[in-house]
Amino acid sequence: MSTHREIKFVKPPEGLPTADCFETIEVPTPAPADGEVLVQTHVLSIDPYMRRAMGGGRNQYQLAPGATMIGRGAGVVIKSRHPGFKEGDAVQSEFGWRELTILKGDGLRKLAPDLQPLSSSLGIVGQSGATAFVGLHDIAAIQPGETVVVSAAAGAVGSAVCQIARISDCRVIGIAGGPEKCRHAVEDLGFDDCIDYKAGPIDDALAQAATDGVDVYYDNVGGEILEAVLDQTNEGARVPICGQISQYNSESKTGLRNVHLLLDRSIKIQGFRIGAYLERRDFALEQLLQWWRDGRLEYRETVSVGFETAPAALINMLTGGNYGKQIVKVV
Amino acid sequence: MSTHREIKFVKPPEGLPTADCFETIEVPTPAPADGEVLVQTHVLSIDPYMRRAMGGGRNQYQLAPGATMIGRGAGVVIKSRHPGFKEGDAVQSEFGWRELTILKGDGLRKLAPDLQPLSSSLGIVGQSGATAFVGLHDIAAIQPGETVVVSAAAGAVGSAVCQIARISDCRVIGIAGGPEKCRHAVEDLGFDDCIDYKAGPIDDALAQAATDGVDVYYDNVGGEILEAVLDQTNEGARVPICGQISQYNSESKTGLRNVHLLLDRSIKIQGFRIGAYLERRDFALEQLLQWWRDGRLEYRETVSVGFETAPAALINMLTGGNYGKQIVKVV
Repeated sequence: MSTHREIKFVKPPEGLPTADCFETIEVPTPAPADGEVLVQTHVLSIDPYMRRAMGGGRNQYQLAPGATMIGRGAGVVIKSRHPGFKEGDAVQSEFGWRELTILKGDGLRKLAPDLQPLSSSLGIVGQSGATAFVGLHDIAAIQPGETVVVSAAAGAVGSAVCQIARISDCRVIGIAGGPEKCRHAVEDLGFDDCIDYKAGPIDDALAQAATDGVDVYYDNVGGEILEAVLDQTNEGARVPICGQISQYNSESKTGLRNVHLLLDRSIKIQGFRIGAYLERRDFALEQLLQWWRDGRLEYRETVSVGFETAPAALINMLTGGNYGKQIVKVV
Repeated sequence: MSTHREIKFVKPPEGLPTADCFETIEVPTPAPADGEVLVQTHVLSIDPYMRRAMGGGRNQYQLAPGATMIGRGAGVVIKSRHPGFKEGDAVQSEFGWRELTILKGDGLRKLAPDLQPLSSSLGIVGQSGATAFVGLHDIAAIQPGETVVVSAAAGAVGSAVCQIARISDCRVIGIAGGPEKCRHAVEDLGFDDCIDYKAGPIDDALAQAATDGVDVYYDNVGGEILEAVLDQTNEGARVPICGQISQYNSESKTGLRNVHLLLDRSIKIQGFRIGAYLERRDFALEQLLQWWRDGRLEYRETVSVGFETAPAALINMLTGGNYGKQIVKVV
């Protein structure tokens, strides 16, 4: 019987995940039943929400210890018992951390043949891009000429936010950690400006970059940066909250001290998950694919090679080691 | 030349306003120009936003020292040079703290003759009711069967929130200060339950009252109560912020420590002012008038008699001395 590897979640971390939170096991490879396909994982998507799912501290969404790690992937059908798929078709779905996976064919997303590398279907033309799109258009309703600020600017969602906001003729200001990421954001990704939060409080730099105030803050980090950007919002500002990465590994709770601004300036803050916007996600994916084909989307990724490197890739992403989408290349 | 009294704003208070923040003056009464009407003030509306407008501490919206105090009123036309109004017509508008006031006829709201007492046009069938309506329907989009929590439950907006949410078949839980206000909320206003925040932390009582969790929190107070209610919200909860009365008189900033819940539970928090929803306000006023005529709106008010009592009425309202709308009866 043939086997493949999977990586299990063993226990919630205290703070940053460590290698012993995971275990790689060898399991028998099942055959697809009627209506199913067997898919070989080519690339795995590594995302901030995974830290939250692992629990510990005050993270609420606990994956059960012993379960296979969650995560989206893209790969190729190697056996099909569904009429809509044949061997060689590229697909993208929730794979979990598995080298091979059985998926139902109904509802499975088949990828356009020209979408190469496959990893882009997980990033700018995939979940990260769609998450940026829905946050900007459905939660924040960006308008041309507005000033959009995004944190984790050099990350997968942050860099997609930049592309989509630029296409809507917004001014886009990034917040990222370190001078090299800021340089990358401006020179490679097209940000109008980028502020290094590791250089100290961002207030002065933000005031200089956002001379007309902040209309939209796309929040990927929470904590003190959320507070600092809120201070410089305009009347009617919108704040989609997509991530709170600064909070995931921390036991301390930084209170938001300027919450009174929500009333003073009629601000909307809204946490959202892309899974609640499936119809708009699909619309966004179509739009992003079009822009991608037109060459309008700048895009970078950080690739970790080898299935067994997935835990290390997750830790790398959580500590800001990635530029753009953090990917694990499995084959 | 005839004269009338006005009350000026003298200086921002530190903390709670005091009598010396105001000055009563005698001024000449002007004649209406073409297109204008002269109105005699019958009742003045006393509202939490006035404290914010007075500035001091971190309140942002400063009324200029020396300006006439702002405030809505209802009264009767005593001279008209506008074809749409005649002597004896009842109207409602921004009067300022004036015994007599000149208003432009264009756009001036004429009151239905059966809307008595005139003060109701400032409360449940006026700005307070419309503010409750827009927060519940436009910001929070309440649905039948949902659990709605409202703070300052026995106040003008809080009691209107109860009426409107009940009409939408919501379960309505109030938060108010002291056993007498809580009794009033349940027995007179129709709240399903009411929690006395002065009796200690509200967590246990809220958990018992909101057994299905909180879907909508209509926030009039901010601070620790906002934090405590957020803790018990459901996925997809909505929090219209209409007031932050606990914060207006305070220099301290209570940080919101559970802001991470916004993402964890896809919560929307939105500050709003009724002035940004004029079309919906007018719709709300029509609807409220209909419900009023049908006898569906429970309503109380606290009346302070005499124009010169307006400052004392404001201080009374800010310290929670009112049941329902705080009104100043001028004539």
